[in-house]
Amino acid sequence: MARDRVRVAVLGASGYSGIEAVRLLTAHPFVEISALTSEHYAGREVADVYRHLAGSDLPPYEELRPDFLRGRAEIVISCLPEKTCAPILVELVKNGARVIDLSADFRLKDPAVHRATYAAEQAAPALSRQAVYGLSEFHRSELREARLVANPGCYPTGALLALIPLIKRDLIDPSSIVIDAKSGTTGARRTASIEYLFAEVNENFRAYKVGTHRHTPEIEQEVSAVLGREVALMFVPHLLPITRGILTSIFMKPRAGTTEEDVRNAFEAAFAKARFVRLLKPGELPELRNVRATNFCEISAVLDRRSHTLVVITAIDNLGKGASGQAVQNLNLMLGFDEAAGLLSAAPVP
Amino acid sequence: MARDRVRVAVLGASGYSGIEAVRLLTAHPFVEISALTSEHYAGREVADVYRHLAGSDLPPYEELRPDFLRGRAEIVISCLPEKTCAPILVELVKNGARVIDLSADFRLKDPAVHRATYAAEQAAPALSRQAVYGLSEFHRSELREARLVANPGCYPTGALLALIPLIKRDLIDPSSIVIDAKSGTTGARRTASIEYLFAEVNENFRAYKVGTHRHTPEIEQEVSAVLGREVALMFVPHLLPITRGILTSIFMKPRAGTTEEDVRNAFEAAFAKARFVRLLKPGELPELRNVRATNFCEISAVLDRRSHTLVVITAIDNLGKGASGQAVQNLNLMLGFDEAAGLLSAAPVP
Amino acid sequence: MARDRVRVAVLGASGYSGIEAVRLLTAHPFVEISALTSEHYAGREVADVYRHLAGSDLPPYEELRPDFLRGRAEIVISCLPEKTCAPILVELVKNGARVIDLSADFRLKDPAVHRATYAAEQAAPALSRQAVYGLSEFHRSELREARLVANPGCYPTGALLALIPLIKRDLIDPSSIVIDAKSGTTGARRTASIEYLFAEVNENFRAYKVGTHRHTPEIEQEVSAVLGREVALMFVPHLLPITRGILTSIFMKPRAGTTEEDVRNAFEAAFAKARFVRLLKPGELPELRNVRATNFCEISAVLDRRSHTLVVITAIDNLGKGASGQAVQNLNLMLGFDEAAGLLSAAPVP
Amino acid sequence: MARDRVRVAVLGASGYSGIEAVRLLTAHPFVEISALTSEHYAGREVADVYRHLAGSDLPPYEELRPDFLRGRAEIVISCLPEKTCAPILVELVKNGARVIDLSADFRLKDPAVHRATYAAEQAAPALSRQAVYGLSEFHRSELREARLVANPGCYPTGALLALIPLIKRDLIDPSSIVIDAKSGTTGARRTASIEYLFAEVNENFRAYKVGTHRHTPEIEQEVSAVLGREVALMFVPHLLPITRGILTSIFMKPRAGTTEEDVRNAFEAAFAKARFVRLLKPGELPELRNVRATNFCEISAVLDRRSHTLVVITAIDNLGKGASGQAVQNLNLMLGFDEAAGLLSAAPVP
Repeated sequence: MARDRVRVAVLGASGYSGIEAVRLLTAHPFVEISALTSEHYAGREVADVYRHLAGSDLPPYEELRPDFLRGRAEIVISCLPEKTCAPILVELVKNGARVIDLSADFRLKDPAVHRATYAAEQAAPALSRQAVYGLSEFHRSELREARLVANPGCYPTGALLALIPLIKRDLIDPSSIVIDAKSGTTGARRTASIEYLFAEVNENFRAYKVGTHRHTPEIEQEVSAVLGREVALMFVPHLLPITRGILTSIFMKPRAGTTEEDVRNAFEAAFAKARFVRLLKPGELPELRNVRATNFCEISAVLDRRSHTLVVITAIDNLGKGASGQAVQNLNLMLGFDEAAGLLSAAPVP
Repeated sequence: MARDRVRVAVLGASGYSGIEAVRLLTAHPFVEISALTSEHYAGREVADVYRHLAGSDLPPYEELRPDFLRGRAEIVISCLPEKTCAPILVELVKNGARVIDLSADFRLKDPAVHRATYAAEQAAPALSRQAVYGLSEFHRSELREARLVANPGCYPTGALLALIPLIKRDLIDPSSIVIDAKSGTTGARRTASIEYLFAEVNENFRAYKVGTHRHTPEIEQEVSAVLGREVALMFVPHLLPITRGILTSIFMKPRAGTTEEDVRNAFEAAFAKARFVRLLKPGELPELRNVRATNFCEISAVLDRRSHTLVVITAIDNLGKGASGQAVQNLNLMLGFDEAAGLLSAAPVP
Repeated sequence: MARDRVRVAVLGASGYSGIEAVRLLTAHPFVEISALTSEHYAGREVADVYRHLAGSDLPPYEELRPDFLRGRAEIVISCLPEKTCAPILVELVKNGARVIDLSADFRLKDPAVHRATYAAEQAAPALSRQAVYGLSEFHRSELREARLVANPGCYPTGALLALIPLIKRDLIDPSSIVIDAKSGTTGARRTASIEYLFAEVNENFRAYKVGTHRHTPEIEQEVSAVLGREVALMFVPHLLPITRGILTSIFMKPRAGTTEEDVRNAFEAAFAKARFVRLLKPGELPELRNVRATNFCEISAVLDRRSHTLVVITAIDNLGKGASGQAVQNLNLMLGFDEAAGLLSAAPVP
Repeated sequence: MARDRVRVAVLGASGYSGIEAVRLLTAHPFVEISALTSEHYAGREVADVYRHLAGSDLPPYEELRPDFLRGRAEIVISCLPEKTCAPILVELVKNGARVIDLSADFRLKDPAVHRATYAAEQAAPALSRQAVYGLSEFHRSELREARLVANPGCYPTGALLALIPLIKRDLIDPSSIVIDAKSGTTGARRTASIEYLFAEVNENFRAYKVGTHRHTPEIEQEVSAVLGREVALMFVPHLLPITRGILTSIFMKPRAGTTEEDVRNAFEAAFAKARFVRLLKPGELPELRNVRATNFCEISAVLDRRSHTLVVITAIDNLGKGASGQAVQNLNLMLGFDEAAGLLSAAPVP
């Protein structure tokens, strides 16, 4: 592997988002994977655990220790769970690494909201304030210089791509927002559990954490930041019997006078340069299969005059644009690469 | 089979709702299946087509002809598609049979709405006006005398069980209703198609007919009837990669002052005598698997004060309470049987 | 509930086979569920854990203690895991209860084979010798008097129903037997694991324990008993991405001269009085959906002259005929009830 | 797109194998897709039908007419169904195009076997004799010069990769071969049907065409060609409720004296230079998910001394190595490209 590739370490590289980051990076033309950690598989070759990556030139899994990196990577993608990783990431940033964190540890700006949401203090409030919220399409310039990127949650990504363009142009009543999202099971971590056993999820469907999911304050923070004032919204996640993908239907009351054209213009303007947002034609509706295993987002809007309701629907892969795909997109932006480098493979359909 | 059982004919008895009606009736203590029709399988034994019913004493499939019944059944369950069946059902009713029609032909009272929705004139406007809308829990007394029952659509059943109790007590703003429903694939007919092939549905999820689904006017008609004035609402159906079940999330703005207790009281009052509606405890949420292959409906409500939003979630089996289960429940009410006769088997979980 | 019903206790009544036994028994006309144990849910009402059983009159889950039963049940169905339950079951039998054990603890007659297979000594070798192997169709008379029934494993049930009739008539070469079986995920226990997470099983398929599965000696023991000498056979199980069901394809070399008619005659004779074995017509092939949530077994045979190979295929529900359904069938036989009491509900198809 | 890329036409480019060929070719570094045909979608842009390919520079679908190509492509991949395509392909070959045919029209060498299997005469017996059977690993040198490649069937590919190395070294008794294969639903064409509706396949599993599947003579032909004499074998396909993938378990009696090392050596020798065959380590077993959406084949062997049986298991994607992936591999070999060009993306797992 060429010595002038940028060296990337992936922490927590054996979970669902971790191994997806590895898969994406093995196909990336400008990076080299220089270190991989896994608590569970430390000491083992990746291809012994994940045969689909056999043939790639990968370092073995190692344990995550405070000083494990020692300058072996310019950039670190952390797929570690909430709370456990913050102190190590703080240390890594101090030592000069640039970090993309897929956990929620640095996403919330307000320490009180963080505390209320995650039942824990922020690990490094100052760093949380500096961290760039990595919703790539809306933070390109900040990402270029970012030391620490708080990669967005999967549900917030699917919701905010729809909401921000509308809020920016004041096309909807922010107090009317209802988000009904449906996620595949890889939204939950790859840990032993009864709840996510095949026989519990298969041929089943249910809502969970109605109005209380931890991604709610994250969505509200970003909407409020654009709006310029606090907003509270309703968010209901559901568990789909599929492996990957989040389809999000967002319902809103349009401002008086808002037209379909206004909505279309808002999205066209917001995503004119977006490589991964597919604004669908009128009559087309997002499907999860079209974005599976990719960093793409499909989006479409319907304004129903009868009920005076606007619905916007988005489809993403929760492990792609909702996690590791967006992390690689952010890496590209941070390093000045082509934003789409390594990310343009088409979804396998069917 | 005892001669004093009530004789029932099932028309269109080889489709998904038809064969489910047959399955339910074979376990019914007070009825006898006296005739079965199937365009596709006429002349064949049921057990040659559907081996899961081998061992039941069933008549062979026969063709549906205008005079085919000749007094062989006191009651007819029609699982025929829209439009094709209306003239025959009109004839059957004239000749004295009591009919439960699972199609949409007699559901809409207003001929203009019917025309706009189904692109066809009502077959018998007078009969449409007399037909009882068979949402069992709210029409028990009319069902007792009904000659023709318009069995509700699957989506309307899931939505109306949530909406009617709230509308009755004026607990919500009717102009704010948003219905986000997710259905298994047996909501579509058992006919050759590409759209519903396994490889098109599996690992996929999508909305369809956003704001334009034919069940919208049906839901609006019944809500409006209770409310006493016209209402327009937003209804978005989605296609789940599962065989059976509809989970419906209904979002509404509560009236100022509406409390969780008000909502709970409304449902408790509405369903005090309901054998098939499971009002869940606070904290419990409906799951499709708990109602699969049954006539039960799970229902729960969450009032989110932060966003001033009420969400009610219902789970039914689209072939059970959403079609054939409710048809049998209506048959029981029409004939003065125990409302739950033949319908109390527990869902197979998992 | 009528006082003259036979009282049944179910041990381990919150796992997959346990809750299926409870579901079946709630619909049984001649028994009363008098005690239920669950390590995990002790102290809780069943309907709080499994809402699909809400409405049934069930005792709460309690802890399993050595003396917990104190004469509260005439018959005990144990769905506890291997090894943990043997001492308690021995005690229960001593105290006069009749026991149906779904674990493998009492299935193998030879202590050496048991030790080699389960890496443990038999808990009570004398009792193991007396235990009746509960493959109902072939042990009816012994079951009538049995104190302890070793309920067969799910894979052995699917294989032996095909093999025994052929071995009895010496129609095949026993040294040629190959069993290729495919099971849904409820064949594994309901315990927290990564291996059986939805995302690990879904859209995947694989063989496991090729030639080394613990059910191999069980199948060989029963075939050998009929044959009158030791046989070794090849058994390869696979994991299907479905919840319930085992389809087993068994390949054999027919004896010279064996005809299709011989094979058919063998099965017809073996299953002439079998209420749950559906011997299919020529041209028909077993399907898992036809037996789902039931105690039925579909079976068919094809003799391929070109390759001189006989294949017999069986379909059962691993939780039905492969576990709890057969346990209830055995209970019926033990108590002199109609063999099919409580077991005749048709599979919900689709 | 660079003018020096080789121009490729795909016929029948809207079915499952057709659109997979298009997906693979869009990522191929040395080819340009110059023409696409689709009976159903002629006149439409590919991205209007298949949004996952939006962003690729593709010609619109056109109708397949006898002279439609007119030198617009050096190489043609035909994904058309059996029988309909043969005359056109004959014409194309005559006019100088090189053709890779995914149908069965040119696979069988013996006209009598073809007739018995496909109930039709060979379209061009002379061409059938010249056609190279495109099992890439065993026909590399012939492929280099081939005018017409008969791309192998999906089942034969999964079986022959296991069988040929063993037959070559005479390690097994050919009269003992039993092939038990399990395929996802995209093995069937993308046409309207009831049999492959989601609700018919989901939560179901069944064998079909036991001993009579059309791929049997194809497997026998290739095994016989290596063996030097006729062989008849038993082949039983099953339908898996998954979208892609074939897992094949092949059972055989080893020759007296055959050791595990012999078997391993045979596979190592056969696949020493094979880029797409993953010979697994002892203890590892193939899984469909590891090959999904790829051209890889996982393979492993277990020799069971107890039952004197050898089982070899292979996993392929029926649309990948079983169809379009192998077609692209063959294209690479025909054109002298790196055999793996465009084919090295890792499977998305999970």
